[in-house]
Formats: sequence, C-alpha cells, structure tokens
Amino acid sequence: MKMEQPYLLFLGDAADPLAAKVAQGIKTWRPEFCVGQFRLENCNADTGLKDLSIKQAVDLGAKTLVIGVANRGGIISEAWIDVLLEALDAGMDIASGLHNKLVDVPALVAAAEKNDCSLFDVRYPTQQYPVASGVKRSGKRLLTVGTDCSVGKMYTSLAIEKEMQSQGIDADFRATGQTGILITGDGVSVDCVVADFIAGAIEEISPDNSPEHWDVIEGQGSLFHASFAGVTMGLIHGSQPDALVLCHEPTREHMRGLPTYSLPDIQTCIDANLTAARLTNPDVCCIGISVNTSAMDEQEAMSYMDMLETELNLPVVDPFRQGVSRLVEQLKGE
Amino acid sequence: MKMEQPYLLFLGDAADPLAAKVAQGIKTWRPEFCVGQFRLENCNADTGLKDLSIKQAVDLGAKTLVIGVANRGGIISEAWIDVLLEALDAGMDIASGLHNKLVDVPALVAAAEKNDCSLFDVRYPTQQYPVASGVKRSGKRLLTVGTDCSVGKMYTSLAIEKEMQSQGIDADFRATGQTGILITGDGVSVDCVVADFIAGAIEEISPDNSPEHWDVIEGQGSLFHASFAGVTMGLIHGSQPDALVLCHEPTREHMRGLPTYSLPDIQTCIDANLTAARLTNPDVCCIGISVNTSAMDEQEAMSYMDMLETELNLPVVDPFRQGVSRLVEQLKGE
Repeated sequence: MKMEQPYLLFLGDAADPLAAKVAQGIKTWRPEFCVGQFRLENCNADTGLKDLSIKQAVDLGAKTLVIGVANRGGIISEAWIDVLLEALDAGMDIASGLHNKLVDVPALVAAAEKNDCSLFDVRYPTQQYPVASGVKRSGKRLLTVGTDCSVGKMYTSLAIEKEMQSQGIDADFRATGQTGILITGDGVSVDCVVADFIAGAIEEISPDNSPEHWDVIEGQGSLFHASFAGVTMGLIHGSQPDALVLCHEPTREHMRGLPTYSLPDIQTCIDANLTAARLTNPDVCCIGISVNTSAMDEQEAMSYMDMLETELNLPVVDPFRQGVSRLVEQLKGE
Repeated sequence: MKMEQPYLLFLGDAADPLAAKVAQGIKTWRPEFCVGQFRLENCNADTGLKDLSIKQAVDLGAKTLVIGVANRGGIISEAWIDVLLEALDAGMDIASGLHNKLVDVPALVAAAEKNDCSLFDVRYPTQQYPVASGVKRSGKRLLTVGTDCSVGKMYTSLAIEKEMQSQGIDADFRATGQTGILITGDGVSVDCVVADFIAGAIEEISPDNSPEHWDVIEGQGSLFHASFAGVTMGLIHGSQPDALVLCHEPTREHMRGLPTYSLPDIQTCIDANLTAARLTNPDVCCIGISVNTSAMDEQEAMSYMDMLETELNLPVVDPFRQGVSRLVEQLKGE
C-alpha cells in the first residue's frame, strides 16, 4: 500500500477547519507532496494551498487525490462522488482513511478498474503480516508512547523526524495510524491488524537499517487505556525501541472515552512503558516528555512544564510551542 | 457462532494420538456432548468413544460433526471430503478449528447450502465486537495467565470449572481459543480478532452475571511473549479478573518459538500480570500456580512444586496429577 506522490488534497465540504485536519497535517508535514487543494463550494476549511480543478492538478503532476476531510461517521459523502469519479477518469488514484471504504462504493470501483487506478483504504491492512520474531534489528528506533489516546504522539513523532533531519540525522517517521499513513504514503494502521500480528506488523514497517539510522515510530493508545492497551503493548514489543518519548495532555479529566478511568501518574506511566519495552530491548530509556499544552495559556503551560521537568528530571517540551530539539539533543551519543 | 450439541467427533486419518488431541479434549471435558467418534481406516488415534457411521450418529441425535484432528499445516484433507459431504447431506453442521477454512472449500459450501446446514470455522470470528467499555461487570471472574504460550491455561481453566461445579459453585468456562470453542460450542478466538477489539471481545463473552457466579476465562499467550503479549494484555483488561492463576511449564528452555528469549521469573510474572489486571479490577489477586509437570517424573514434580510453594507462599498444583481443589479452596470467602 505505497501511495504515489504528489497529492491533490480533497477538502470537500468540510464543516470547519477541524474537519480538514488530515489535509492540514499533510500540508504541514509534507508540503513537498502537495500540488494544491480541491474544495467544494460550501467548504469551510483552507490549508492555504492553491485551489485547483482536477484537470489543473493532473497537469501539475498529481498522482493521488487524498481525502483530507472527515465527517461524522466517517462516511464517503454522496456530494463527493462526482469529483472522485472525475479524478479517477483523469488517471489519479484515491486514498482515504475513513471508516467506510472506497472499495465498497461500486461506482468508484468500476471507474478505478476502467482507468487502471488504485483505491487506497489506508485504515484497512491489505497485506498479511508475520508473527513477530522478536529478533533484534539493526538501526535505532524511537517510539512515542502516551498517558492516553490522542495526546499528540503522531505530531511529536513527525516533529522529531523533522528535527533529526534538520540536524543531519538519517531518520524516517513510521506511520501506525491512518492519518500518518496518508501523510507519508506508507505504514500500517496497527489497530486494524489481526491481534496475533500486532508486533509482527511493526517489525515489518521498521526493518533492519544502517546502524546510525533512526526510525521514529508513531505510538498508539496507552498501556493505561482499558480499551486499547493490547495494541500499545504489541506496538512497544514490535518497535524494540532504544528511546521512548512520553506524550501527555495535562488538562484531560479522564481517559478518552472512559469516564470512570483517571489518567495515570506520569512516573508510573514511564516505568510501565520501560518495563514493557525492556522485553525486546533491555537498553531502552525514556529521553523526555512531550506535552500538548494547547488548552493552556503560555504562562500556565510554561510553569506546568517547569514543574514537571523538576519532578521527573527529564526534558519536557511542547513540540508546537518550542520544538523538540531538546529531545533530539538527548540522543547524541546514543 | 453457537454450535449445536451433541457432536460426532471426526478423527479422520489421525497420524497418532497427539493429532487427535482436540477430539480427546472434547471427550475429556464434555463427554455428555459426544455420541461417538468417526475414524477412517488408517486412523491411529482412539478417544474410546463408540465408532459410528454418519447414519448411526444422526440416528443417535448428532447435530454437529466436529473435526477433532489436526494435520501439518492445518489443512482440510482431500481424504476427509467424502465423509464431510455425507455428514452435510445427513443434515449435520460441521465445525473446525483448522487454519484453512471450511467455507473456502466450494463443495462443502454447496452441500451446506443445499442441506441448510452451517459450517463453523471457529478460529475466525464472524461477529463484530465492540470497543471495550471498561465498565465493571457483575459476577466474578477467574483468568488463567501464563509464563509462556501452551503451558496448560485451557486445561487448568476447564479443571477449575469442573472442580467449582462439583463443589456446587455456579461456574462457566469461557473459551478464547479454537480448541476451547470446539469443546464448549461457544467463545471467541481472541488472537484472530482485530486489535482494537481484543478487550471488547472478552467483555462480550463474559457478560454481567449473578453476584456469586464465576466465569473461568481461558487465557492466551503471555505478557512476556514478544510475539503475542498484546493479545494477553487486552485479554487481561477485558476479563476484569478477580482472581488470577498463573500457569507454568518448568522444563521449557526458552519462550515458545523464540529461541533467544528465556522464561520470566515466576514472581516477576505474577507481579506484571497483577499490575496489568489492576487497571480494570483493583481488587485482583493471584490465588495460586498451576504447573504442567508432564515432562517430570512423580518425585521430581513433587519436589519442584514443594520448592515453588515455599518460595511463593501460594498453592502450587499440577491439575492433571492432583486436581485443582486447593486453588478453588482459595476462593472461598472471596
């Protein structure tokens, strides 16, 4: 499931900017992949890219139309179909991370076949993954873990990849969720893999590499999330991480979707993740904390992070406010 | 996927008794489900049940032919097809836990449709499971966990169910693997569920129950198995166990399938399982150890178990040699 670049970002009839956050993520992290955006008349989002027709996009070399918008229920809207058909007829592939599948829409399947184009439903793995071998791989690996779901693991991982590359470190982000896959064009939506193959899928997307190379692997869920910790556990073991970065959102009142579950203590969470990770890499260490302070004002955020840094004796950063150079600094000499 | 009883156990052309261990397990744990066995001429296994023709089995009320034999590769042998077709034509359902599916054999599908019979591939879940809610359920739950895969978790669970029932305790074994499902006719093959739904599937097969009722849930894998720990983690969280029994095979030299991984220390393994289980049931405790000493002689086994019991200060039993009454004893007053 390797998507071809460059992309035309489809924003459709996004109700608000948040509905187009996938498109915004692609534009933020892979601007070089994007030739422009396509918006329907009632679209309330804007990535700032040039608005293009299908024909203009193809003329600029676009290979894949990426559905960068989500609506309630994750369905493929009737209102989008004409544009999607036009894109297929113009020779573009289509990629989607929605719950409902492109391949379940007969008109799209027929048009894709006719034009010899591909439909990528990146949420659903199409390949068979092996059972994890647990055999140590060459190269280095950093994994983001979290106190909870949706606390900024993907954002942090992409920021670390970018910072590493800007410092001349050979690094690749490895996507484990649909948004990450759409951004980079590759990866595995690990929570949709059959349970026996969770760790094996991660071994597959982060293969042997040169000794100085870093894979920056996007974490999922949390060891402390009662619904999804199995995914997290397998992801940790398959990653064989040398370094962990713990991601946290400090204003959350309970675990996401679980009103009776409170968030874990941060040191307890670090220790649990290190214990799990040591099974496949005894040398793992936690190099710092990434905090999503978007719900705090600047002063509140800074004093919270100062407090945490003193308490944990580890670098604490908000990647959005300050970048992640202090985290990458920790890896020098690893 | 509720299979109908009683069963005709199909031993086919089993190469040796071990190849028919599924049939033997059904006969051991659910003799009341079995009307007899069916063997081909070159069968080298025998459950001790009466040999029946398909017609005789149907006359005795058999509703399901259960494939109780495994061959290398888990395939459905050509040599079996005539008998399977005869069973379908006689109105029986067929159930299999093999890797290859009954529903992928066109002749069987056609015969099942013609006769309005069902084909159960119990290894492959056919229903959608929900994301786990983590909400505490009524009733009590015991979960078997292990230092490794294939150390006797199913056997121990079935022995505990039987012992509880013989003591007048209301108890049900809950199957989480294909053999357990074939034995009881119900359950979920949890390692074949999509990763997001591991814990949710276990919540579903062990629903609210009366306050004094025990579900005895079959564990899978091990938190210390680098290939499968994700399954184990989700299974623990979904079970919300009140009591854990740790299963162990003391002669194993490395983790199953992982030559470079040694077995965990038993106390470390107990502690890790309790820590994981406390997330969804803070009151969980470990009530004892079940040791599979089949590779030891009687004296060696007894002195090993004595040693372990002194070390851990918990009851240590081999269910096959001694039964599990000392484990069930621990639950009185829970």
